[in-house]
Amino acid sequence: MAYLCTMKISAGQLAALVSGTLEGDPEILLERPSKIEEAVPGSVCFLANPKYEHYLYDSKASLVIVQDDFVPRSTDHPALLRVPNVYQTVSQLLGMFEEGPGNEPEIHASAVIHRGAKLGKGLSIGACTVVEEGAEIGENCRIGPQVYLGKNVKLGHSVTIHPGVRIYRDCVIGDRVILHANCVIGSDGFGFAPLEDGSFKKIAQIGNVVIESDVEIGANTCIDRGTMGSTLIGQGSKLDNLIQIAHNVQVGSHTAIAAQVGIAGSARIGSRCMIGGQVGIAGHLTIADRSVIQAQSGIASTIEEEGKKWYGSPAMDYFTFLRVYNEFKKLPQIAKKLREMEADWQEYSKNHKEDESNHHQK
Amino acid sequence: MAYLCTMKISAGQLAALVSGTLEGDPEILLERPSKIEEAVPGSVCFLANPKYEHYLYDSKASLVIVQDDFVPRSTDHPALLRVPNVYQTVSQLLGMFEEGPGNEPEIHASAVIHRGAKLGKGLSIGACTVVEEGAEIGENCRIGPQVYLGKNVKLGHSVTIHPGVRIYRDCVIGDRVILHANCVIGSDGFGFAPLEDGSFKKIAQIGNVVIESDVEIGANTCIDRGTMGSTLIGQGSKLDNLIQIAHNVQVGSHTAIAAQVGIAGSARIGSRCMIGGQVGIAGHLTIADRSVIQAQSGIASTIEEEGKKWYGSPAMDYFTFLRVYNEFKKLPQIAKKLREMEADWQEYSKNHKEDESNHHQK
Amino acid sequence: MAYLCTMKISAGQLAALVSGTLEGDPEILLERPSKIEEAVPGSVCFLANPKYEHYLYDSKASLVIVQDDFVPRSTDHPALLRVPNVYQTVSQLLGMFEEGPGNEPEIHASAVIHRGAKLGKGLSIGACTVVEEGAEIGENCRIGPQVYLGKNVKLGHSVTIHPGVRIYRDCVIGDRVILHANCVIGSDGFGFAPLEDGSFKKIAQIGNVVIESDVEIGANTCIDRGTMGSTLIGQGSKLDNLIQIAHNVQVGSHTAIAAQVGIAGSARIGSRCMIGGQVGIAGHLTIADRSVIQAQSGIASTIEEEGKKWYGSPAMDYFTFLRVYNEFKKLPQIAKKLREMEADWQEYSKNHKEDESNHHQK
Repeated sequence: MAYLCTMKISAGQLAALVSGTLEGDPEILLERPSKIEEAVPGSVCFLANPKYEHYLYDSKASLVIVQDDFVPRSTDHPALLRVPNVYQTVSQLLGMFEEGPGNEPEIHASAVIHRGAKLGKGLSIGACTVVEEGAEIGENCRIGPQVYLGKNVKLGHSVTIHPGVRIYRDCVIGDRVILHANCVIGSDGFGFAPLEDGSFKKIAQIGNVVIESDVEIGANTCIDRGTMGSTLIGQGSKLDNLIQIAHNVQVGSHTAIAAQVGIAGSARIGSRCMIGGQVGIAGHLTIADRSVIQAQSGIASTIEEEGKKWYGSPAMDYFTFLRVYNEFKKLPQIAKKLREMEADWQEYSKNHKEDESNHHQK
Repeated sequence: MAYLCTMKISAGQLAALVSGTLEGDPEILLERPSKIEEAVPGSVCFLANPKYEHYLYDSKASLVIVQDDFVPRSTDHPALLRVPNVYQTVSQLLGMFEEGPGNEPEIHASAVIHRGAKLGKGLSIGACTVVEEGAEIGENCRIGPQVYLGKNVKLGHSVTIHPGVRIYRDCVIGDRVILHANCVIGSDGFGFAPLEDGSFKKIAQIGNVVIESDVEIGANTCIDRGTMGSTLIGQGSKLDNLIQIAHNVQVGSHTAIAAQVGIAGSARIGSRCMIGGQVGIAGHLTIADRSVIQAQSGIASTIEEEGKKWYGSPAMDYFTFLRVYNEFKKLPQIAKKLREMEADWQEYSKNHKEDESNHHQK
Repeated sequence: MAYLCTMKISAGQLAALVSGTLEGDPEILLERPSKIEEAVPGSVCFLANPKYEHYLYDSKASLVIVQDDFVPRSTDHPALLRVPNVYQTVSQLLGMFEEGPGNEPEIHASAVIHRGAKLGKGLSIGACTVVEEGAEIGENCRIGPQVYLGKNVKLGHSVTIHPGVRIYRDCVIGDRVILHANCVIGSDGFGFAPLEDGSFKKIAQIGNVVIESDVEIGANTCIDRGTMGSTLIGQGSKLDNLIQIAHNVQVGSHTAIAAQVGIAGSARIGSRCMIGGQVGIAGHLTIADRSVIQAQSGIASTIEEEGKKWYGSPAMDYFTFLRVYNEFKKLPQIAKKLREMEADWQEYSKNHKEDESNHHQK
């Protein structure tokens, strides 16, 4: 059993909802979306990549969604639903089968909510969640169990907070933001003044974190508060799991950041960037809009040109890196060739000098 | 005080339990396992690596476990226990001294358990733990405080869950699995459809995570649910701390993954692989069984051959990498040599042409 | 609104407190520290880096702190406060504006505290926090909500623990330590004995973690307990977020470790080291005092010389790495030059041999 879902829909209803063309019985009942290689009767699947076409001809799926110009190699296949954009339709379909919270808005009796907090309408707040003084929660937020909202934290409306999220005091979260389990928003920035005796003095971190609307933050990701002013995650940006965002970083809008990326203090990341997993970005630099950074790369200096692709640690232009890496792999042969040429040359020079001296002696 | 332990055992009892040969007084009382360099009277230590043999001769340990063919350089040493496999014996010994939970099975009064959850016998459930509707917990599970088990989560028997673990709805956990503090199982996969205006639309993640029996998952590790179908961790695999496993990844059985590794979506990792710390593995590729991947490597393409060792980012054959890196370190000398040869060559060509033209003019 | 703060101070009072020289009205009221580019009336800012001097001349700040020998290019600027060390004064200033916990010492009614735990005076313990048997908490500790302190955990005095921290049994925390949200102290080390059938047997982890005084540990950082003996974080060391410290690691005093670093089992890190983000350090090696390791580097062998700087994966001397990387970027040109020289050489050798044979035939 992969997941439970009580939703059912007929092939005809689905075709109407997604404006597709059905080749098959409109009464077929669809119970679950499945991957085509794992389909069982009742499954609705999709086929977009021709590489997987062979799965079609012995699939047990009840319906397969395909591109509208798809030409099957054989007639022995499940019912088809032709659509103009398979991925978009699948995204729609998954949304239909997603189960909502399934609970009435409810504030659990074990939640500990300060009487000085302001709560909007239609909220649900889970068991053992703690809301401190001065916090303000907008309408229709769904706050899971075991969450911590510090003093004066402000949430917009329709925010979803999964269990175990911690938001330190004074942080501000926009509308429709989704925060996954155990992420930490507003922890102290890593700021210490070195003293003469070699020890460190903590610098108070009195800023906050501002997360704009429609942002999603992954599980166990950390976003530190500004030392002064705010650490900012711009509108619609998506952060995966286990990411480190240091104090006073600014991330633009609609930027996607994959898991385990680390961004050091006061870096400014543009909008619509794509940052691959495990990338590291140094502090106090700027990344231009629409930059694409390959996984595991290290960005050590400002990127001014927009829309370019980067790779390596320290990173360089993506295509340059591919050429460099291609020679890098051959370094032992390059070094060998060089040694051979050097030996040839020395041999030659020696002989030639003898030759020349013979020649001159004639 | 390093740790507290009330267990005591005599050297004679220990020798009998591990089938070893004792050279010393069987009445010696052993109170704690220690590292040989930190031993105090009452300590039982081990010596396997000859590099540390010098510690033996002034150790205050009451007993030292050694390989059965060990020949001491001096007779001035603590009692010895000779065994055929030191590491195996130490593992046994540590198990003897490990303290159990020490509590009677108990469901704490502050735990919030939905009346629609099914609980096996002999359970303990800690304070402030939340169990949602439809969850099923097998016999003899030990669930710590402040844990979250979402709707329809299924646990086998004898599962150990440390404080602060979050398991999202519909995930399935096998028998004897150990989950360390604050790990997150079943968070949403990082799936977004880019829209024409450059913003992202969330793709519903309706799959789950399946963790097979005898798996151990480290602290703060994240395993995302499948978009459709399951993210799978195979039987007996061991995952360290702070690891990212993306949606629809499949990990085989008895694979060991060190801390801070990231595996991108839909990658398939074989069985009995060893993956070093901070390795990154790209999405949609396959890693053959028994692959060994060196720490910090990046795997960007499928590995088909079984049992090979890999290194570098992007990774190459381990021994090739060592040769490549050996030349890489010498790149400044290689470049210098090349420049010198070029200069010599130009000098020579110039002279030689003059020489030749002189020659022809004769 | 970046943050809330009810503190106000006059420019004259501030000048007296930090022993600075005021150029302006001592009655000016200061309400918040701000970055100079974000200042509003009531802001006190600082200017240390000449690069940002242009912000001074149209800043709305009420007061700007500058170095005592600063010479403005224009007279049109806010009031100035001259001090001998700007950064030190700012650190002092931020401390003044930092808000304290604001609560009376209080043990929340929903905290679950074993009657066998010992509590010092002046404690605050937050809602839903769990304290197990045998735990000892020193005076004036501030323990947030939803924290877990396992059996026999010992805290010194004035320790600050943020929400969601988990400390496993037997760990020892020194005075004035700060632990950020969701960090995990004392989880099991990653220790397994491979069995003949290819499966793993868990090795009991019976050690603990010892954190000395004045240490700060970041959000979601994990420190595993020793297998035997202790994992140790030395006095005054500072660890950022999402760091992995494996079993039996020893970190010296006053060492700073940036986010996402991973240190493998039994490594010994010196004192006053600086370790950049995402660095990986292999197990069972030693890092000398005052080593500086550049971000994303990989340390694969012992560093014996103190106070050196390292870079690369595997790392080399910092300046060597810069030279190597400089040639690495040019590898395609190096390879091309080598191919050209080889072609020239072959061409030459061929001609020359013909030439010589012609010559001899004369």
